[in-house]
Formats: sequence, C-alpha cells, structure tokens
Amino acid sequence: MPLRNRKQYCESLRDGREVYIHGERVKDVTTHPILRKAIDHGAIDYELDKREGLQDLFVTQSPTTGNEIRRYFQIPRTAEDLLRRRELIETATKYGNAIILFMKEIGTDALNALAMITHQMDKKNGTHYSERVANYRNYLQESDLSMAGAITDVKGNRSLLPSQQAMPYFYLKVLDRNRDGVVVKGAKVHTTSAPITNELIVVPTRAMTEADRDYCIAFGIPANTKGIKIISRPELENLSWFDYPISSNHLTLEAMTIFDEVFIPNDRIFMDGEWEFAGPLANCFATWHRFTGISYKPPIADVMIGAAQLIADYNGVERVSHIRDKITQIIIYAETIRTFTKAAARECIITENGIAYPNPLLCNMGKHFFATHYHESIKAVQEIAGGLVVTGPTEADYKNPATRDYIEIFLAGRKGAKTVDRLKVMKLIRDLTATGYAGEGYVGTLHGEGSIEAQKISLYREYDISRCVDYVKGLLEING
Amino acid sequence: MPLRNRKQYCESLRDGREVYIHGERVKDVTTHPILRKAIDHGAIDYELDKREGLQDLFVTQSPTTGNEIRRYFQIPRTAEDLLRRRELIETATKYGNAIILFMKEIGTDALNALAMITHQMDKKNGTHYSERVANYRNYLQESDLSMAGAITDVKGNRSLLPSQQAMPYFYLKVLDRNRDGVVVKGAKVHTTSAPITNELIVVPTRAMTEADRDYCIAFGIPANTKGIKIISRPELENLSWFDYPISSNHLTLEAMTIFDEVFIPNDRIFMDGEWEFAGPLANCFATWHRFTGISYKPPIADVMIGAAQLIADYNGVERVSHIRDKITQIIIYAETIRTFTKAAARECIITENGIAYPNPLLCNMGKHFFATHYHESIKAVQEIAGGLVVTGPTEADYKNPATRDYIEIFLAGRKGAKTVDRLKVMKLIRDLTATGYAGEGYVGTLHGEGSIEAQKISLYREYDISRCVDYVKGLLEING
Amino acid sequence: MPLRNRKQYCESLRDGREVYIHGERVKDVTTHPILRKAIDHGAIDYELDKREGLQDLFVTQSPTTGNEIRRYFQIPRTAEDLLRRRELIETATKYGNAIILFMKEIGTDALNALAMITHQMDKKNGTHYSERVANYRNYLQESDLSMAGAITDVKGNRSLLPSQQAMPYFYLKVLDRNRDGVVVKGAKVHTTSAPITNELIVVPTRAMTEADRDYCIAFGIPANTKGIKIISRPELENLSWFDYPISSNHLTLEAMTIFDEVFIPNDRIFMDGEWEFAGPLANCFATWHRFTGISYKPPIADVMIGAAQLIADYNGVERVSHIRDKITQIIIYAETIRTFTKAAARECIITENGIAYPNPLLCNMGKHFFATHYHESIKAVQEIAGGLVVTGPTEADYKNPATRDYIEIFLAGRKGAKTVDRLKVMKLIRDLTATGYAGEGYVGTLHGEGSIEAQKISLYREYDISRCVDYVKGLLEING
Amino acid sequence: MPLRNRKQYCESLRDGREVYIHGERVKDVTTHPILRKAIDHGAIDYELDKREGLQDLFVTQSPTTGNEIRRYFQIPRTAEDLLRRRELIETATKYGNAIILFMKEIGTDALNALAMITHQMDKKNGTHYSERVANYRNYLQESDLSMAGAITDVKGNRSLLPSQQAMPYFYLKVLDRNRDGVVVKGAKVHTTSAPITNELIVVPTRAMTEADRDYCIAFGIPANTKGIKIISRPELENLSWFDYPISSNHLTLEAMTIFDEVFIPNDRIFMDGEWEFAGPLANCFATWHRFTGISYKPPIADVMIGAAQLIADYNGVERVSHIRDKITQIIIYAETIRTFTKAAARECIITENGIAYPNPLLCNMGKHFFATHYHESIKAVQEIAGGLVVTGPTEADYKNPATRDYIEIFLAGRKGAKTVDRLKVMKLIRDLTATGYAGEGYVGTLHGEGSIEAQKISLYREYDISRCVDYVKGLLEING
Repeated sequence: MPLRNRKQYCESLRDGREVYIHGERVKDVTTHPILRKAIDHGAIDYELDKREGLQDLFVTQSPTTGNEIRRYFQIPRTAEDLLRRRELIETATKYGNAIILFMKEIGTDALNALAMITHQMDKKNGTHYSERVANYRNYLQESDLSMAGAITDVKGNRSLLPSQQAMPYFYLKVLDRNRDGVVVKGAKVHTTSAPITNELIVVPTRAMTEADRDYCIAFGIPANTKGIKIISRPELENLSWFDYPISSNHLTLEAMTIFDEVFIPNDRIFMDGEWEFAGPLANCFATWHRFTGISYKPPIADVMIGAAQLIADYNGVERVSHIRDKITQIIIYAETIRTFTKAAARECIITENGIAYPNPLLCNMGKHFFATHYHESIKAVQEIAGGLVVTGPTEADYKNPATRDYIEIFLAGRKGAKTVDRLKVMKLIRDLTATGYAGEGYVGTLHGEGSIEAQKISLYREYDISRCVDYVKGLLEING
Repeated sequence: MPLRNRKQYCESLRDGREVYIHGERVKDVTTHPILRKAIDHGAIDYELDKREGLQDLFVTQSPTTGNEIRRYFQIPRTAEDLLRRRELIETATKYGNAIILFMKEIGTDALNALAMITHQMDKKNGTHYSERVANYRNYLQESDLSMAGAITDVKGNRSLLPSQQAMPYFYLKVLDRNRDGVVVKGAKVHTTSAPITNELIVVPTRAMTEADRDYCIAFGIPANTKGIKIISRPELENLSWFDYPISSNHLTLEAMTIFDEVFIPNDRIFMDGEWEFAGPLANCFATWHRFTGISYKPPIADVMIGAAQLIADYNGVERVSHIRDKITQIIIYAETIRTFTKAAARECIITENGIAYPNPLLCNMGKHFFATHYHESIKAVQEIAGGLVVTGPTEADYKNPATRDYIEIFLAGRKGAKTVDRLKVMKLIRDLTATGYAGEGYVGTLHGEGSIEAQKISLYREYDISRCVDYVKGLLEING
Repeated sequence: MPLRNRKQYCESLRDGREVYIHGERVKDVTTHPILRKAIDHGAIDYELDKREGLQDLFVTQSPTTGNEIRRYFQIPRTAEDLLRRRELIETATKYGNAIILFMKEIGTDALNALAMITHQMDKKNGTHYSERVANYRNYLQESDLSMAGAITDVKGNRSLLPSQQAMPYFYLKVLDRNRDGVVVKGAKVHTTSAPITNELIVVPTRAMTEADRDYCIAFGIPANTKGIKIISRPELENLSWFDYPISSNHLTLEAMTIFDEVFIPNDRIFMDGEWEFAGPLANCFATWHRFTGISYKPPIADVMIGAAQLIADYNGVERVSHIRDKITQIIIYAETIRTFTKAAARECIITENGIAYPNPLLCNMGKHFFATHYHESIKAVQEIAGGLVVTGPTEADYKNPATRDYIEIFLAGRKGAKTVDRLKVMKLIRDLTATGYAGEGYVGTLHGEGSIEAQKISLYREYDISRCVDYVKGLLEING
Repeated sequence: MPLRNRKQYCESLRDGREVYIHGERVKDVTTHPILRKAIDHGAIDYELDKREGLQDLFVTQSPTTGNEIRRYFQIPRTAEDLLRRRELIETATKYGNAIILFMKEIGTDALNALAMITHQMDKKNGTHYSERVANYRNYLQESDLSMAGAITDVKGNRSLLPSQQAMPYFYLKVLDRNRDGVVVKGAKVHTTSAPITNELIVVPTRAMTEADRDYCIAFGIPANTKGIKIISRPELENLSWFDYPISSNHLTLEAMTIFDEVFIPNDRIFMDGEWEFAGPLANCFATWHRFTGISYKPPIADVMIGAAQLIADYNGVERVSHIRDKITQIIIYAETIRTFTKAAARECIITENGIAYPNPLLCNMGKHFFATHYHESIKAVQEIAGGLVVTGPTEADYKNPATRDYIEIFLAGRKGAKTVDRLKVMKLIRDLTATGYAGEGYVGTLHGEGSIEAQKISLYREYDISRCVDYVKGLLEING
C-alpha cells in the first residue's frame, strides 16, 4: 500500500472510536473543532514526504517488502540512522511550528524498545514475542498507520507497587485470559495523540516484582477497540492566528485512556507476565522516548531566539549588553540539547540483535538539561520583551477602527519597525510563554513594579559601596 | 461621607467611560461579563471593613476631618504604620484568593510619592503642589474612591529620551496650555485596574533632561474624562470554578490608557515641567510600589505551599525526601519576601515632612528576590504534582455520567484521599502555574519523557562510578 | 574582678593544657607561632572595650553583681538586646579583619541554650540544672573567661544512633559515675578556638532515644582539665602581610578535642541522661549559633564588595555593565544576610523564663542563604579581578631590585592607580578566595582559556541567529 | 632525533634562563625544590610514550620525515584526529593526577592557529609566513621540545586599545626593526609552564586597529633568549603526600614573562603588522586552547566523583537520597564537558588548507559550562564530605604516638572502613577544593553552624505549613 495522504489519514479516524472532550462524547473526531485542529496538525506529517527536498529524509524502503515506508519505522542499525531519526523529528517539528506532530514518534519508540526486550525475553524463555513485534511493525508501516503510546498508569498511591494498592486496577491488569488472548482493565494517562491515532501501543510503566505478574503486559491494538474510552484534556477554542500564532493552528492532544475490559488477541501481545523484563522494557522505552524528546525540543528554542532577537530589535535595544547576554542564554539552551542528542546517536550501543540504541546516559543528560533549564529561556525572552506581552491589546482591538490608529501610533517601536510586526512578535512570545492567569502571573512577577534590571540598578545605587571601599583601604593601608 | 459599599462602588462606574475589550466598546462596564468579574473582585475591598476582626486593620480616622477612612489613605508616619500597610495589603490579597485587589494600592503609592516629592519641589521653587496633593488625597479618601496609576509610557525606541523620539507622543506630553490647565497627549501601558477605578493618577516614568520639560507632567483625574480611552487586555470567559478555582472569580485587569488631548485642570496638576524632579518622582513611586509588590506576594506562595503539601499527601509521597526539599524551597520563597517587606518597613526613612518612606534598598531586594526566584516555586510545585495537572480531565468530564466513574476510580490517590479533592488541587495548580499552551509546555518540559527525578536516578545508574572510585583509590594507594 | 586585658588573657593560657599541632605537643601555647597568631587575633576582643566609641556596645553591667561584664554574657531579654548582640558580633568581627574572634560567641550561644532548656528540664523533672547554669555564667562573666563550644561528635557511621554504633565512643559517653560527678569518654570535632580558650562547654549534637541515655551529657570545664587533649588543625606559617593581608595576622583555630576519661564535677553538669531534651538542646544551641553565624558574616561580604569595586576601578572597568551586575550580586549577598539577622532578632520568641530567643525559622533562612550563595560572591569577585589574582608575583618579587621595576611598570592599571595598591587588592582577593591548589584551580577554571564573558561573546557571535529570525518571520508572515 | 626522555628534557632546561620565584633568581631550575616539582610533573609527558598500551595514542610519524614524533604535533586533518587529540590530553592529564602536564598542549594550540591564519595572510598579502610556521613545527617536533604560550598582555587600562594606553608597552610592542629581525618590549601574564619549557610561542591577545600595527606581532623563540625574564607565581613548599595527595607531587607553574628588548630573528616571526589578522589569530588560538581546556577537565571531575562516592561510603551515607543527588550533579558536570568536547571534534570545520578546526561554538559552550558550573561540583563534594575536611588532623598527628590511637579510633567511619583511608580521602578533597584560608572559609560557610541539609530540615519544620494547607482547603472547599 502506498503512503497515505492527509485525507486518507483523516478518514481513517471515522472508525467509531469512543472519545470524550469537555464532558461530551465526540460524534465524529474529524469534524469536532478541537480534534480537527489536532488532526490537521498531525496531518502535516502525511504531507511532508511530498515537500521539495524532504523526501529522502522522510521516506525509505522497507527491508522486507521493498515498499516505500516512512522513515520513522526504520529500525536504526547505525549511529547514522539515529542521527537521521533525530533530524527527521527536528525537521517534522519545525514544520509543525515547533510543536511535535506525534503521529509515529512514540509508537516507534515503543516498537524499538519492544524489539530489543522481546529479543532478550525470547532468548531466555524460548517465547516468540519478537516475531509478533516484527509482524506488527510490518503491518503498521505497510498500512502507514499512526500510533499513540500508552505507558503511564494512574498509579494510585505512588509509594506502593501495583499489587500492594488498595484498588487492583491502579495499574493496567490482566483480568481474564482465554485461548485467544487476554482481557485487561485499567487506565493510562498522558496518552498523547490517542484520540487521533489509529493504534495504541501499551507497555508497563515501571519495574515490577513477581507479585505484580498480572500487571506485566504489553500489546498493540486499534484505538477503536471495544472497551477503550479516551478522555481528551481541555483545549481553548476559537483562537485567532494573530493572537495565538502557534496554538491557533497547532495542537498536540493529551488524553487519559481507559481500558474497560478490553480484549487483546494473542498475536498482538508482546509481554505477558515476564516480570523481570517489565523494568528493562520501561527503561528501554524511556531511553528511546527521551531521545525523541531531545530531538524535538530545539525548534522551540530557535523560535525563542528568533523572537527575542526580533523584539529586541523592534524595541531599539538590540545592542544592549544584558539583552545579548539573555539571548546567549537561550542559544546555550538550544545548542546544548542538540549536542546531547547528536552525542546520544553517535555513542549508541549496538545490541545483540543489531539495533542502534541511543546512549542512555546521554539521552538522560539531554532530557535532564532541557527540563531543568527551560524556565531560564522563558524568563530570558520575557525579560527582553517586556510586560506588554501580557498587557497589550489584541487583533480585534487592532481591527477596531475606534482604537486601531492609537495602537498603530503608540505601540510602534524603533523607527522603521512596523507596529503590526512588533505586536505579532509579542503575541508569539505570549502564546509560547505566557497565556492565561498562570502566564500573566509569571510575566507580572518579572515586570510588575519594575523589571529585574531596574532593581539591579537601584541596588547598586542604594548600597553604601564607599563604606566597603574605605574598609578595604583601611585593611590594606591604601591612601587616596 | 461614610465608606462606600460594594453596590455604591459598582454604580459609580456607570459614568460614561470609554473602555474597549476584545475589539469592542463596552457599553456598561458593570454588566460586561469580564469587567464584571474584575469589578466583583475589586469590590471585595469594599466589604472587608465589615468583616469580623478586620475593621481595625482596614479602617482608620482622617487626621483632618476625623471621619472614618480606609487605611490605605493613611500617610505612614512610623515603621509601625508601614508594617500595618504591609499587613493590610497581604490580608486584602488573601481575601482576593491571592490576587491583589488593586482598588487603592497603586493610587496611594502615587499619592505618597507625590507628597514626598512635591514637598521638595515646593521648597526649592516656591510652588504649591503639596497643597494640591493633600487636597486631592482628602477628596479621594472622603469620597472613598478607587484609583489606578498610569505610569509606564509606551516608550517607542527604548534607547532614546522622550524629546529624541521619532514620534513626539511616545511619552505623555503637554500639548497645549491655558489659564485653567493643560492639555496632554500620549498613552500609558500597564495601567492596572484603570477600566474599573474612579480616578487615574499619572506620574512620569523616568528621569528626564531639560529638553524633556513638556513630558514632566503629573496629575489626577476621573477615568471618564473626555479623551481618555482605555483598552483592556484580553481575558478568558466562562471559566468554571472547579477547573479554574482562582481565575474563574478573581481578576485584575490590565489595560492601555490613551490620552487623546485630555484637559487637566490646574488644581489637579502636581508637576509641570520640573524636569529635575521627574527622576526622583519616578524612583520614589517605584519604591512605594515595590513595597506594595512585596506586600501582596506572600499569599500566592502560601497557596503554592498548601497545594504542594496537599497533592504530595494525596499522591502518597508526603514523606519523600526530595518532595520535602521542594516544599522547603517554596517556604524559603514566601518567607524571604515577607522578611524583606517587614525589614523595609522597620528600616524606613522618615522624611523632612514626616513621611515614613520604606527602605529603598530593602524594597528593591525584596522585589528582585521575588522576580528572580518565582519560577523555582512554580517548578517545585509542578514537579511535586506531576503531569496530570495539565493532561487530566475537567469538571465537565467528571460530571458526565459516561466518564465520571472512571475518573472517580482511576484518578484516586492514596487510600483515604477523595478523588474530587485531588482533582481540585490539581486544577488549582494548573490555574496558578500552567494554563494554555505556554503552561502546558512548561509542565510538559518537566514531565514529558519522565520527571527530573527519574532522569537523576538514571544518570546515577548509568555513569561508571566504579571507574572513578578505582582512579581515586589508585591515587591514594587505598587497597580494598 | 575587672575586665581582663590582652596580657591577662594570654597569660591565663599558660595552664598546662595538652595541645597538639602539626604532630607535636605544644609546650607553651602563648609562644608557638601559629597559636600565638590565633591568640593575638582572639585578644582583639580583650581590647575593643577600650576603643573610642565602642564601650557602650561591648560592656554592660551584671544584673546580679552590678559589675562591668562583657555584653556577650548578657542574657537577651528583648529584641533590642538581640539586635545589640548582632551588632556586637558584626562589629567585633569587623575589627578582626572580617574573621570572627570566637572568644565568647559560641560559649554564650551554649549558655543561652542551656538557660532555656534546663528551665524546661527542671520544670518537668524537678532538677536544679538552671541554677548551675546561672552560677557558671556568673563565674565566667566575673572572671572574664573565654570559652569554646564542643558540640559535634565524631559520629562513626552517620546513619546509626550513638547506642547502635560498632564502637561505643563515637559519641561522648558517660563511662562512670560517682557521688561527686561523672567520667566521660569520646571526642568532639570542630571545637573552634578550643586550644586558646579557658573553658570548654559541651552539649549533645543531636536528638537521642532512651537507649542513648548515657550520651545525653552537657557540662562546662576548664580546657586544661586532665584527660583533655586538643589537636589543632594545620595552618600555614610565615605568611607575609602583603601577600596574605588577612590570614597573616588573623586566625581562627579549629581543633579536635579528645575526652579521655575526663572527670566532670556535679556542679558543672547541666544535663545527664535526660534523653528527651537532647534534641531540643541541640536544636536550641543550633539556633543560637546560627544567629551568631549570620551576625558575623556581613563583614566578609563587605570586604568582597570593597575589593571588587577597587579592583574594577584600578582595571579601568568600573562602569562596565556586567561588572556592576556582579558587584550588585555581592551587595545582595551581604544585605540579605543582614536582613535575616535583624528580622530574627526582631521576631524573637520570649520564653517562659524571659529569654529573647532568635526566631528559628529566620535564623535558618539566613544561614541557608549564606551557605548556598557564598560561592556566587566568590565567583563574582574572581571574575571581576581576573586571573592575575593567582598568577601574579609576590611581595618578595616586588622587593627584588631585579624585578621590581618590571612589576611596577607592567602591572599598573588605569592611569592614576598605583601598582602597589592594585597588587594589594589582588592579594586580598587571593587570600580571601583563592589560595593553594584548590583556590588556584577555582580561578583557573573561571579564567583559564578565557573568561566567562569572553565565552559569552563568542557564543552570541557563533550561533546562526539570523536563521532563527527567519524562522520566526516565516511563522508570523513578517516581510523585511 | 629520537623522542627525548625525562632526563634529556630536564637537562635541556639548564640553559641559563632567567627565572625568578619568591623574590629570588633561580640558579638552576632543575634543582630548585618548587621548579623541580613542576619539572617532574611535566616530565611525566616524556615517559607516557613508553607505557604499556599508550604508545599508539602518544606517538605518531612525522608526515614529512617519517620519524617518530609525539602526537601533540600532528596537525589534525579529520574529526578522528581531533577525537584522538582529546583523548591524548585527557589521558595525559589522568596520569598527571588530574593536573594537565602542559608541555606541548598550549604550544601546539598556537601552532595550529598560526597554521590556519598565516595561510589566510599569505593568500591575501603574498607573504610567506606559512612556510616559517611549518619549519618551526618541524624543528620542534623533531627536537621533541616543550613549549609555553605567551598570549595575555598585561593590558593596563582594560577599556583602552594598545595604542591608546598611557604607557606604550602594556601590550607587547615592536620597538625596533632591522634587516634580520625585530626587537620587542612588553610583558605577558599567565604564561603557563614558561619557567620549564624550551620555547615560548607568542601571539596577540585581541583584535587590533590599524593604529595598533606595532602590537600585531607573533613569533617563537627559546625561553633562554636574552632579555626574557620569567617570574613564577608563589607555590607552597614541603607538602606531605598524605596531606596533599595531588599538589605535593604535581604542579603546573604559572608565570609572568617579561620581554625587555628581545630580538626575534625573521624566520621565527609569524605575524608583523597585519592588524586585520590579529583578532582572527587571537580568536583562532582561543578556540584551539578552549578545545584543550575542555579536554583536560574531566579527570578532575572523575576524581571528585570517586572521592565523593568513597567518603559517602566511609561515612555510612552512601544510600542517602540527597547524597546520590549531589554525586549525580558531579556526574553531569563531568559528562557534559566530555560531550561538548567530542561534539566539537566531530563537528569540526575543515579549513581551506586542510586543517580540522574544532567547532568554535561547541568549544565555547564546553568552556562556558565548565567555568560556570565548577563551583557546584566543589560544593557538592564538600557537602558530602563534611567539615572534617578542613578541621581534621594531619599526617604528622596521625604519626605522633601521643595522638595516633585517638585518631585511629575516633575518626573511624562505618564499620569496615579503615580510618587511614577515610583520612586520605578527606585530605584529597581538601587538596582539591579547600586549602588555605580561602578554602577553609568555603567549607566553613557550608558547614559552620550546621550543614545546608540541616537547615532545610529546620525550615520545613519551623514553617506553619498547616496554615497554608487550611488556606488552600478553604479556597477549594475541601473538608477533612
């Protein structure tokens, strides 16, 4: 089957799936305004292979059928393959306006982890999970399906194991078993894109003990399988492009996915009770997924650098020392992540069954870095932009003849900068860093009652430095 | 006149003022859903004097008329007065669900600064501004009016002085002058509460040179004065209390205020051309306002501490070492701000005309601290709460019979914690720290692909520590 | 007895005490070069009461005898008393060239804690420890003795309680008991000033359980008591004043104090077996001592501010933006500590027996702040000063006619600054922040291969910012 | 000529050079105790080629003569060459007990930069500097000489250019010129290893203007050339191995090098007046040298990790959560630097004349990271080790029969750990992070009055968290 296009992807989602959002069952996910926005965002992935210059990056041949498949499905065999996977994810994200598309990334993270761990399981136990995983991968890539990953259980009391919990389904559990398969019950959270992907791939979320056997279950099934109920998180509607230049048209859905006695056929089961391998599988998935995480992050940082530079220019402060310092901080953020990602690819581990596994130490360092330093970039760009990011008027005010001219004249920046461009950049920074009460609070904390730089100037002026200088001169017997 | 009540305050706003929001002129600010929310929030201030136990704090006598006036208007004469002003602002904010009420805080910051600087101006130049300021204060306190401050000019190119700009009105300017007063033109941004206060008090935003004389203008006028046009920033509508426990009912409006040839009568002008005093007035206002800023901040930190402790408890991790460490970080945040504020009061400067001026060094240190460390508190509470804060379902989903039971069962925490309470705390944390694409991105960056703590565990495990131990043992000739 | 003078203090140390340093028993502590330096430093405290303007601060009357006593011994009864104690310690430290004198600070910290906790013990158990503590205080103040505190036990395995340890004396233990007193065995570390003070005051270092009864012992005894052996830490000798402007003449000795079957008479025992009070006593002492800690810290910060400002001036970079930023950072360090200390005094708790107890929360915040941010001040001053701090020549080179002129000419700074003054400031910064291999390594890490500011400039230049700007312009449809 | 050995290197230094230390002219650098220590350290480099398994890394063939040369001299042509250079420097440093040997690193950094920039100069101006540089490299590698780099001028007023200074020789200047060469005057600081290397290579330290022509001079000459006077920085003498396990035997000398009318023959001049190339040469050298910097840093971090792990183990706290957290922090430090260095090699730029130039952005990021985060590693290891690092007794005390047993018994750690090993690790940490008044002050600031972790526990306990919990419960209408 040839690669699907946007339309085929969209239509494939009209499959009777049970999706809820804002308290209501969605009748047709392709027409609901929020879900449609997410679908349109995801559909970008179904078009990039047609773009000038991107085909080589996005498409490859299946080693088994020789058919064209999307490169996401390619099992990395070399450092070069991983570098290309990194580039693939960064590039796709770039075309998603710095939001990852999440059609195949998590799914193939899970497939790659399953390929590694089922090989170990089969070798130890004489099982045949590897073959099932390989068949499933073939099916997915030949049908050009999109997949979500369902990993994180709801967990209940976080300091207890699955089998110790007061309620038996805080972790997804095998409830019943027959010749053809198993029945599972439980719920997974953070199942990104689940409402709008074709398949769900499920793996355990943590290491388990023998008592937790029934919780050691991994599988792949269609999202419309009976008993699956997906509750999407809330999203804002009717956002104008001008005021929300990213989130008006781009959206990654998060969801909670409930498995209410869902039947899984044998050929889609990839782990069932092998408790010693639950931890390794969870860790292995985590490494693959962290590699994806550090691959998709740089475009956001690049948007921040570009926006910071532009607004500094429009405000007439592009050459000010502390402004450059703050932009440099975001540069360090962007490039450190890229460096870790490339290093994780180059220092990959080639497994016994020939898979190039991204270096776990370096994946974790990259992820740790981007999580611990993100706020600094946000803070830097907000400090550069100023409070108008959250207190300024909207597109509607700019279109209103009664206020347009005032905005045009008064919100101009340095000579030569267009007011409308300056507003656009402000709105971008708002969308990226400062929406809602939370975001306004953040900016307000920085700029309310005067910027941080203003405080520093006051502090230098208000402290009696000359007293300290005299003290030191006295100690050192310096005269004059 | 006795103290006004909520109703009198609301009705006083039906005065023909020219307010815009979301691109439309507001016909009646008291009935527009967004403005009404802000008015209801502000109106809390008109009720606190009636609350059991608060009267002494909120009400005092006018030293001139002996009438009851709100304590905001009291000119601080001693450290004790400033400590009470601090307590007044913290307490009022607490009743505003951690959002400052902004009915009189900024206005009296400006009045106090004007009282100090006009004294100096009069002394040097023989003018009589002080008397005008005192009369204006009397008028405001006896009429129990609410006031906004209009300080920050739009600035144009930020590296140029007012008189150097390409466009003459990037700073508010005196356009014309006659026997009765002056006509001004320009625009101020970040004029908090301007759409819903009775009066606007205007002071310069920076130090000026002699060439900038016409920009050295300070005054107070009603918000409905002809030529004043106020554009409110956008706000979200129809937020449910459950999903937005703070911002659904509490709101501080930010706005841009345009002065299109506005006439200011002489008796309301408090500075006009005294360029050497523009900087001192701007600085003096900044100090008063920073004192206000550090007075209203602790309730937000207390909400974060309470929410962090509760969610840690509900998640079953209350005794985990790194969780306590993160809560301690927020405690440090809250208490450091309080400490600086009290110190600024206690180490106040008594001016020549008997005003207790909060210590500028300490006000700036407090403001600098809260601006530079805010993100750490946000990060701490988000790390403790987990990703569900942004990916979890809403009140509507919880009310939907098709999903309610799943949520009830699966999103329970430790035994004994009610699911609904756990969700409430999550929504509070979301409202406070993580709404919109920006907030979701922040949490996603922390928790996506595994929490920071998960990375740290991986890092410790993946690094070859034994190699380092052997190296050191070799250096030190340690055997075994 | 009148207040002792420097000479009396020195002579009182010729008492047969058993002190070791650098592997040798010290025959006479008053003539050993290292110990003599420490004694001369401590002796400053015996002279400050004679200085113009300091008498009121340093001397007060005994409430029991009416005799003149040093203010250290005064039991604080009010916030004002604590503020004066803070000022006393900061001032004395200032005269010690920013090194605390440690003649009476720790000892009175212990006395104050004992006064508080023995009151509680007596009340609960009907004991009479309070009286003993009061008598001991009277003896100390009337004799004008100096005291060290011995608190921290050697601890062995830090995760075990005293009674659980493999060796019974990892915590100081009562070995034997008779009608007249007890015999103790064990060792305390970090017994600051023990080699050169008259008395040692001993309190437990942690909370204990009932099984640890024999470790719950507090007392005061002369430093020359039989069985006490004091091992001083190593110190450098023969330091020139020019090259080591602080440590050449000022020194606080640290030591390990061994109690090898030491007899303690009953009237000097202040706790013996009351295990429930061991924790409270340790905590109470900790709070008093942290109050002392945050009182003596600001002079060091002031030296850093003065040195940073001077060297910036001499280097010709006093007006550079990032230099001022770094000085501001040290200002924040100094003043934050002062603010916490004053706040801890002002928000003291008055105990049942009328002692003004510094606020524990605020003492801990102050101590936490100075411990966690110290390195930033060091880094700031080192960044400002440059690598010459550790690579530059010495006084001897400057005195050597063969090299003097070269140094004079080539190491001059901005016009008008004397080379010798510039060198002095560099040496001060070295003494304060960068001696030895460790300190050189620190500066080398900052400045080797180019300063941090140099890297930042390179980073801004090397990153392709225009690519980011174009990306953002594309997203926002900005032309030109 | 075959590779020299330790003895040949040492003897080559008896060449009449003019070296000063501690105010005296050194008669024979090979017998002066301090210089001898540095020579012995440097001489390690002359032995590593003979070590089992290191030859391939340390030795290669000259592409011109085919003779064996040290790999330092190899011009990197590929990323692989740079990776090997990185490994070479890290390995050599490891054998120097984590102190870089500095026999050839800086010198070849300068040669590589000169090879790049002289190529550009020759191309533009038709000069023949490249050939001179190549000849000089051949001479150095065939003779197996050691070299120092003299880069940083003394600078005078740092905000003025060379030609603007009050004194003409604040930057090294061409004073005179004849047919055979030039005469220079000035002084360079931070000329690492200059007292004990055979040659000095000199390049400009910054970008220059046309007016600074006479300051644009680069060359290489023997360290014993007439007019060169080298003043070494001070170093401690007679350090015992036990107490100073690193610095007792290993030492990198820093020095100030004076050029008092030194003649440079034409064939050793590599730049003379080409002012447009001064900046590029300085920058290019900086990049090469930063690559060296980030190559030699990891062994120190590995020593810290090993020492931290060992002392945590000996103290019985190896499994404590915050201890592991701190070790993880040092791991991140070590591995981030390694990652940047490898990335700088792999993403090198191949110049027109075929040199693999380390990526400047990544070199700067690596250097910036290690300079800005070093203190955190120091702090982490000091926090783990405890105050005994600076207050504990010395080897001499341990050898003294009067105190040995006390030390043996009381300073033992967890069961099974030898006291002597525990002391050794403490001394290592002291040597590495905390010698002298400066280092003691650092540790004292962390641990004096209780460790940071102790403060955090107190803070959590002292704050009224239940008040905050009640506030939040009130806001959210949570009962119970």
